[in-house]
This record gives sequence, C-alpha cells and structure tokens, in this order.
Amino acid sequence: MPYVNLTMAAGRTLEAKQSLMAAVAQAVHESLDTPLDTVRVWITEIDPEQMSVGGVPLDEVFRRRTADAEVTPAKS
Amino acid sequence: MPYVNLTMAAGRTLEAKQSLMAAVAQAVHESLDTPLDTVRVWITEIDPEQMSVGGVPLDEVFRRRTADAEVTPAKS
Amino acid sequence: MPYVNLTMAAGRTLEAKQSLMAAVAQAVHESLDTPLDTVRVWITEIDPEQMSVGGVPLDEVFRRRTADAEVTPAKS
Amino acid sequence: MPYVNLTMAAGRTLEAKQSLMAAVAQAVHESLDTPLDTVRVWITEIDPEQMSVGGVPLDEVFRRRTADAEVTPAKS
Amino acid sequence: MPYVNLTMAAGRTLEAKQSLMAAVAQAVHESLDTPLDTVRVWITEIDPEQMSVGGVPLDEVFRRRTADAEVTPAKS
Amino acid sequence: MPYVNLTMAAGRTLEAKQSLMAAVAQAVHESLDTPLDTVRVWITEIDPEQMSVGGVPLDEVFRRRTADAEVTPAKS
Repeated sequence: MPYVNLTMAAGRTLEAKQSLMAAVAQAVHESLDTPLDTVRVWITEIDPEQMSVGGVPLDEVFRRRTADAEVTPAKS
Repeated sequence: MPYVNLTMAAGRTLEAKQSLMAAVAQAVHESLDTPLDTVRVWITEIDPEQMSVGGVPLDEVFRRRTADAEVTPAKS
Repeated sequence: MPYVNLTMAAGRTLEAKQSLMAAVAQAVHESLDTPLDTVRVWITEIDPEQMSVGGVPLDEVFRRRTADAEVTPAKS
Repeated sequence: MPYVNLTMAAGRTLEAKQSLMAAVAQAVHESLDTPLDTVRVWITEIDPEQMSVGGVPLDEVFRRRTADAEVTPAKS
Repeated sequence: MPYVNLTMAAGRTLEAKQSLMAAVAQAVHESLDTPLDTVRVWITEIDPEQMSVGGVPLDEVFRRRTADAEVTPAKS
Repeated sequence: MPYVNLTMAAGRTLEAKQSLMAAVAQAVHESLDTPLDTVRVWITEIDPEQMSVGGVPLDEVFRRRTADAEVTPAKS
C-alpha cells in the first residue's frame, strides 16, 4: 500500500510524466514484492520559479548546473 | 491542531470541494473533540493524468472502475 | 481516489485515531459520492514539541488555549 | 539536507515568494548550521477557496481576520 | 531536482527500504534523464494501524488481501 | 495562513529544532508581512538511513560531504 508523491519542476511532457509514474510503480512493486495495483504514484508539479536550492530559484540553479554538466555528464 | 491535506483528482465543482472541507473538518472536530477552528483542511488537486494506480494513469483506471461500478454500486 | 493525510500531535489513543480515520473516510465518501474503498486515510503523528504556532511549540500553545477554553468551550 | 515545503494561499507576487524562499533557507542554514546549498525550499500554492479553517473557506476567514487586524496589528 | 516521498506501512527491513530507495532513484533518473544525484528519495513509515482503506485499518485490509492473493499472485 | 513542513534527518537536539521552528516562523512572518500566529511550522524527522541522495543513504552522503567540508566551509 505504498503512496509515492513525486514533487518536481513543471515543464515535462505528459508522456515523460506517465512513463515516470509507470517506471516508479514498477520499481516499488519489484523492490517490495507488493502487488502492483497497490502502488499509487502521483506527481506534484511546482513552477521552477517557486522551487529553490540554498534560497536560489531553480531556474538559476539549472543555469549553473548546465555549466557543471560539461564536466559531469548527466547520464553515463 | 490537526492539519488535513486532501489530495485528489482535479475536476470537482468548487461547491463539492467546499462541502468536502466542511464535512471533513466536522468529522475531525467530533472524533477528536478538538475545537473546530483548530482544524485546518486544504485540497491539493492533481491532474488525473498525473495520478496513477499500479503505474496506470487515473483516467484509464476510472474507465475500468466505471465498468466495475455496474456490479458494485458506489453508494448504498 | 482521494488521499487524506492527517498530521496531528501525537498522544491520542489508537481507538481515537481509528475512529477518526473511519469518520473522515465516511465524510469524504459521502461528500464526493465516491466509492468508500477508494478513500485512503493515514495519520502522521508529530511530537507536540516539534509542532509550532507562530514559532511557539505546541505544548505551550495548548497551555494558553486551555486558559482560553474557559471562555470559549471546545464543543457546543 | 532539510526539505521545506511551504503551503500557502495563492496570490502573492513572484518577488515576495522568492524573497520568502531565500529568507527561509537562510533561517534553516543559520539555525542548523548546515550548508546553505543543502536547504531545499519549495512553495505549494493553494487556491484560497480550497483552504479552510474550521471548515470555513479561507477567503471568508480572511474577511474576519481583517476585522480583528484593526485591534491586533500584523507586524509590530 | 525531483523529490520523492514514499509513504508506506512500517515493518520492512532496512535492507528492503534501502534497495527500494535505490531502485526508485534509478527509475526517476532513467525516466527523466536527470542527473542521478539530483534525485532525493525518503521514506515516511506509518504504523499500519494508522493507515486505512475505506476507513478500515490496514492490518485488517492486509488480512483480506491475503485471501485474495491466493487467486491474484503478487508478482508474475 | 502558511503551513511549513520541515523534513529533515533525525538527530538534532530539541533545543535546535525549537530554535529552527521559531526562526522559520519569523522569516515567513517578515517576508509575507502576515500575522506571526498564522504561521504553522512542524518538523517531520526521518531516520537518515531512510533518506537518500541519488539512491545513496544519507549517512553515506554525510561521510562524503564531511570530506568536502574541509574545502567548503559550512558557514561563512
């Protein structure tokens, strides 16, 4: 009976969000060996201007992170 | 001092949502014998396309549930 | 498919908490005319020393409220 | 690694919300002596019609509070 | 910068919970193509006596579900 | 009427947590110019073994962060 609340910056496509919900539900189902249909996942989207890291709005954080990403690749 | 966060699929009328908040506040007030004005209720609406059961988006779940509802009435 | 998260000060009996969950579920079921078994309620208990009103820990708030309660009865 | 979720009535300016996030992050950083960039703050805005105190929608609560405010100033 | 809050009944081993966090973080990382270290997952455990489905405490729900499980296998 | 839910690793002293609640309430009060007693702050403590960054439990993250801290001071 796990409930999974995903909070993330708004801006993803519906397709990406639905793939995300399916992948997370599957991960919970497999990790806990709990029936798949007891896993509830929902997404709370927040305007990136209303999320912050160290008090800095997320859009500015993303700009800095993009610079870092040239050194640290996002996905290996 | 109970805080009640109702997360549900968007799409209800404002009237239904305000009746819901009043009914839930009343239920908490009576069950806990706590002053009514200390009960705070708010509704977080989520797009049904961003909620899921077993990884399946809620709109598809609702379609299946509607079929079941012909056998299991929603309210007796 | 409503999810209800009740956050409240720890210290109630299990019986009170289970009555509360049943009453709230019933209120949601009746207000939204949604099948009862789709209503999920859970209680997050917080140590009253870790809740605050205006920055004042809840146990001190309760002491003040008790004084007020002599004028404003908790339940009419 | 503190996560701070601010739930509040919608209607503030973006500037006010971003000042709020910065001030809260700073308060957490100073109180816990934790690195500033580990403090994550986000704002969940709720339509005031979907928040309630004692079952009463917030817009009506605000009207009552405004009357009280003539006696109790918001900021000393 | 996704935050994932898993709410579930207490009672799993620490090993199971840590595998769960790793699997969910991986699922989010792959689905969103976001850097793995930006994915934050935490588990909020609730006493099964304080979770409910349709107002029925979870331990009783589990007993019913066990009966169903003889027909519907948990994992295919 | 802002509600502030602080989620953080368990292990702080009660004194630190209560100072934190007071400081955050004050920050919200000053930033929003809202009456102090409408600001509700509560702390949800999570076992550091059940929080994760990139799927890595927080205690291990802290060990890595401690190494970094020799270069990046926590508080300037």
